[in-house]
Amino acid sequence: MESIEELALGPCIASQYLRPFRLRYRQNGVSKLWDFMRAHDSVSILIFNISQQCFVVVKQFRPAVYMCEMEEQCPQYFENKTEESWCPLSDVLPASKGITYELCAGIVDQPELSLEEIACKEVLEECGYEVPVTSLKRITSSRSGVGLTGSKQTLFYAQVTDDMKSSEGGGQPEEGEMIEVVEIPLQDSMKFAYDETFPKTMGLIFSFMWFQSNIAPKLQEK
Amino acid sequence: MESIEELALGPCIASQYLRPFRLRYRQNGVSKLWDFMRAHDSVSILIFNISQQCFVVVKQFRPAVYMCEMEEQCPQYFENKTEESWCPLSDVLPASKGITYELCAGIVDQPELSLEEIACKEVLEECGYEVPVTSLKRITSSRSGVGLTGSKQTLFYAQVTDDMKSSEGGGQPEEGEMIEVVEIPLQDSMKFAYDETFPKTMGLIFSFMWFQSNIAPKLQEK
Repeated sequence: MESIEELALGPCIASQYLRPFRLRYRQNGVSKLWDFMRAHDSVSILIFNISQQCFVVVKQFRPAVYMCEMEEQCPQYFENKTEESWCPLSDVLPASKGITYELCAGIVDQPELSLEEIACKEVLEECGYEVPVTSLKRITSSRSGVGLTGSKQTLFYAQVTDDMKSSEGGGQPEEGEMIEVVEIPLQDSMKFAYDETFPKTMGLIFSFMWFQSNIAPKLQEK
Repeated sequence: MESIEELALGPCIASQYLRPFRLRYRQNGVSKLWDFMRAHDSVSILIFNISQQCFVVVKQFRPAVYMCEMEEQCPQYFENKTEESWCPLSDVLPASKGITYELCAGIVDQPELSLEEIACKEVLEECGYEVPVTSLKRITSSRSGVGLTGSKQTLFYAQVTDDMKSSEGGGQPEEGEMIEVVEIPLQDSMKFAYDETFPKTMGLIFSFMWFQSNIAPKLQEK
């Protein structure tokens, strides 16, 4: 159970992470402006542990998701927000409101590594499995946040066994990552995918369904 | 074919659309900061035209997607970007680089309307079909941009017939929307979903697959 305390909402000035830009252009003769952000592309990996017949996903506290819920409950925090000061948030929601289930994933920020190499690194760091680059299967790619960042997400599939587990995973605590590895039994997976009481990403829902169509029939043959 | 001309990249100051914030908090005893943005929740609608046996989706130029490609080709535009000035972009990429295929969708910004009512309004505005609120089927919801906005996307299914078409759709030109309605024949839909040469959202890919599992079998029975 996560403990989230001492929340305060502040101004976001010269962020290292959020890089807003404005594009001016003429589309079919009409002048336009569009505000957008640059964000890194990313990879995500559907991990299936064949020894345990379960999916391996990650669960973590997401401040942005938590603050969505906060705005719904306490819109005044955002409405009254002035540029300069920090505003302590007293009506604290339970941490569970900001916890999401996601595929193992990472941003593409190392030009010297291939997407597959980055994916394998994330599988090891977040979930503790040593996956050979050649065993990854590329599923597809998509565009996320098309209005805001438009960054490209590439989705892979990795089949693992208990023998490939070399650590507990959990992300990089030195970078502030607090990631919990969660196993979802195959037999419960579609119920989980559609259970809206567990907030999750579309990539997770899609990939569970992709598995049912593309991998599950082959497992049953064996 | 879209014409995109006279591009310039500028500073994004006091954006009406991008609302960055910084959250300070203590998670399990560790102090943290997280930069995020507030964004509206959204609805998206998988539309299937049963008369034509096709999906109805939208296609539009997305500046954020286009600028992802631009940064890959010409990183110097972003690296040298100073806060104050506009920088004309001379190595213009074809507009097609920024064109995405998406489900009909809209943001949730009218508190007096239900999600279903907003969905029906978008189906009419963007795609030209009059869909009764009661005929919408809720598929599921998910969280998008979990690191950045965490906003909630609710996905609906709408089955339509040619008789329900009352206009051409195309969005609201007065709000600058230039949306092209595209019909994807059911028989080509899974090939299209996985064809990465047509950039698209995960919601579109997922919903086509959901249809195959949940709706297509019932159509064949009839």
